[in-house]
Amino acid sequence: MKSLDISEYMTQLGTRARAASRAIARADDTAKSGALRAIARGLQANRDALIAANAIDLARARDNGLEPAMLDRLKLDDKALSRMIEGLTQIAGMPDPIGEITEVKIRPNGMRVGRMRVPLGVIGIIYESRPNVTIDAAALCLKSGNATILRGGSEAIESNVALGAVIRAGLEEAGLPSDAIQVIETTDRAAVGALVTATEYVDVIVPRGGKRLIARLTEEARVPLIKHLDGNCHVYVDSAADLAQAHTIALNAKTYRFGICGAMETLLVHQSVVTDFLPKLAAELRAREVELRGCERTRALLPDAAVATQEDWFTEYAAPVLAIKVVDSLDEAIDHIEYYGSHHTDSIVTDSVTHARRFQREVDSASVLVNLPTCFADGFEYGLGAEIGISTNKLHARGPVGLEGLTTLKWVLDGEGQQRG
Amino acid sequence: MKSLDISEYMTQLGTRARAASRAIARADDTAKSGALRAIARGLQANRDALIAANAIDLARARDNGLEPAMLDRLKLDDKALSRMIEGLTQIAGMPDPIGEITEVKIRPNGMRVGRMRVPLGVIGIIYESRPNVTIDAAALCLKSGNATILRGGSEAIESNVALGAVIRAGLEEAGLPSDAIQVIETTDRAAVGALVTATEYVDVIVPRGGKRLIARLTEEARVPLIKHLDGNCHVYVDSAADLAQAHTIALNAKTYRFGICGAMETLLVHQSVVTDFLPKLAAELRAREVELRGCERTRALLPDAAVATQEDWFTEYAAPVLAIKVVDSLDEAIDHIEYYGSHHTDSIVTDSVTHARRFQREVDSASVLVNLPTCFADGFEYGLGAEIGISTNKLHARGPVGLEGLTTLKWVLDGEGQQRG
Repeated sequence: MKSLDISEYMTQLGTRARAASRAIARADDTAKSGALRAIARGLQANRDALIAANAIDLARARDNGLEPAMLDRLKLDDKALSRMIEGLTQIAGMPDPIGEITEVKIRPNGMRVGRMRVPLGVIGIIYESRPNVTIDAAALCLKSGNATILRGGSEAIESNVALGAVIRAGLEEAGLPSDAIQVIETTDRAAVGALVTATEYVDVIVPRGGKRLIARLTEEARVPLIKHLDGNCHVYVDSAADLAQAHTIALNAKTYRFGICGAMETLLVHQSVVTDFLPKLAAELRAREVELRGCERTRALLPDAAVATQEDWFTEYAAPVLAIKVVDSLDEAIDHIEYYGSHHTDSIVTDSVTHARRFQREVDSASVLVNLPTCFADGFEYGLGAEIGISTNKLHARGPVGLEGLTTLKWVLDGEGQQRG
Repeated sequence: MKSLDISEYMTQLGTRARAASRAIARADDTAKSGALRAIARGLQANRDALIAANAIDLARARDNGLEPAMLDRLKLDDKALSRMIEGLTQIAGMPDPIGEITEVKIRPNGMRVGRMRVPLGVIGIIYESRPNVTIDAAALCLKSGNATILRGGSEAIESNVALGAVIRAGLEEAGLPSDAIQVIETTDRAAVGALVTATEYVDVIVPRGGKRLIARLTEEARVPLIKHLDGNCHVYVDSAADLAQAHTIALNAKTYRFGICGAMETLLVHQSVVTDFLPKLAAELRAREVELRGCERTRALLPDAAVATQEDWFTEYAAPVLAIKVVDSLDEAIDHIEYYGSHHTDSIVTDSVTHARRFQREVDSASVLVNLPTCFADGFEYGLGAEIGISTNKLHARGPVGLEGLTTLKWVLDGEGQQRG
């Protein structure tokens, strides 16, 4: 398409999404969950066709020399389809967040002031290769009463268009407008630029992808983003820590999975416990092939550790690397986290109520943990049922974002003709 | 100052605000309210000096030919000071929103997941001539545990610098860092550009001012804005309306004050009641010198009314002008509001529960009212105690924004060494 056509195409998509958003906003849960179950049945009935569409993407990706890890993410097999079907069924079964009225107060003049939970409107999702996001994100947006515009990676275009057709059929089967979930069917990158600046049609963008994508979108976007930037997470082993617990926690935080955003990247250890604690942990980490980089006092205990530079304290490795720093106080630990951290997820290991409370109150991160590994940072673990992502924004949704993060509260007032003034 | 100096000055201000924000975030309410009361005493003790500083601003403004209405807004007299003192005392007495932990749930593995209300961090306030905003906004930000950077209009610079000195003294008296509330002491407009792009130091900007200011800031800003754009508010008189109530409500909605953002700008009337309802209301509005503009069917009943154009339906007059449209159904009323409205505050007058519920659910505005005039759109009327402004954003704070809108929720998790996986 030419860029003029792209602009027109996106305007059409946006106009249709805005119109559909009104129908979805007032749809009851029978219709919304009915559509999710119909989509699940559609995936089941079209397994072969979907895998065939994905095979075209995979073949082209191989021709283009895509890395094995990327091919793996792109792949849509029977197992992946089953997980998507399971996800749909699970989201269908969750309570409908929409319409609830809370905090109703009666004012002195008798009028009632409350807040109603309502959808955001139209949500744009921009993501990379995994085609399962097409289903997972669409399901969460639909359940929360929003219309959705999906923009997947160009390498997954055939898969996403095929999934889009199944989604449309499911919406129609449930009597909902098929425009409620639209897949952008062009791989032109201009479509992304159009989507993130379409303040008239799109209420919020949820980008899912690597740091480079997010940084680029942050630069371009005029529509607000619910975004996730860095996950430079810390565990601080306090002077009052139970060292056996600290060992378990630090090990789990680093090695549960190296690539997740909740993985510990810097370990802070109070000087009073470092001799008893660190060598044993370091041996265990090394046995798991984790590279260690430390401050001077760390290296006095672990001579083989590399020197940690300023840059290390700022880095989210997302890899088997750990920076270690010895600190003299809780204050120094908090200062370090505030200065170098990314305000994502940070944890203290301590048996002191006072230290735990101070840490939890003063560390300005989306999640602040006591005696738990940072790798728990996840919507399912928090009991949200499902998550659309993790937000490092401070406004609106902070931390793991479930259905509630895709909604907002409006004021509802009821009276009997009261007048002001 | 040169622009390089401005940039350096703003970086200094930002760095100091960020540092102070940590102290304010952990300050207890005794300190925060103590500071507010100390500032109130400071205003009381410095009445003459403050009025003298304001006199310099007023003299310069007169020399510059500022309009009488603007001069009036700029003026700081004993009455205005008393109102500021009263506001401070009132905000000091409100409950501290910070630190409350809610929604605590125990997960199957025994860990406890809850949410703690915390400050946003550093809030920038950009406003126009009224110097009372310096005190009112600073007080709300301080009470909610935030550091603040205040940028008032250049015409009020002497007043604002004088108020800033009183604020600093009050903070120090209460043992809080004086950098918690800083007044920008240059009138260079480059400071505004620096402030709204300082994502490193500023968490949110609350602009207070006319549409032109807000539009300009929206264009420039990289820091999120809690902003208020248009107030194109509607009252819809339904087929099932109590017409006496409808009369009172429409009259109050239009004439309580023409200039407020909650004033009714378009009246929608169901065709089945228009003959009984409209002529009487029109007579009353005309008696109050309200200019009427109507659709064809309106003009059939009110031949003297001007023709309402497409543009009228989109317009926030903020003046004694009213657009009137006759509609055939609740659906047409909702469609009109969704298409032409600004999603600020809209009201239905009806005795039908079904119509009331549909209107309240389907009209996508920050406040949706039943049997009440739109002019109630105000934080005090809603019981917020005080408001920093009214937001037409959908994310985070929507509608009147009180202390809660200046806070956010972080996740707090407590465990005993549970592991993931």
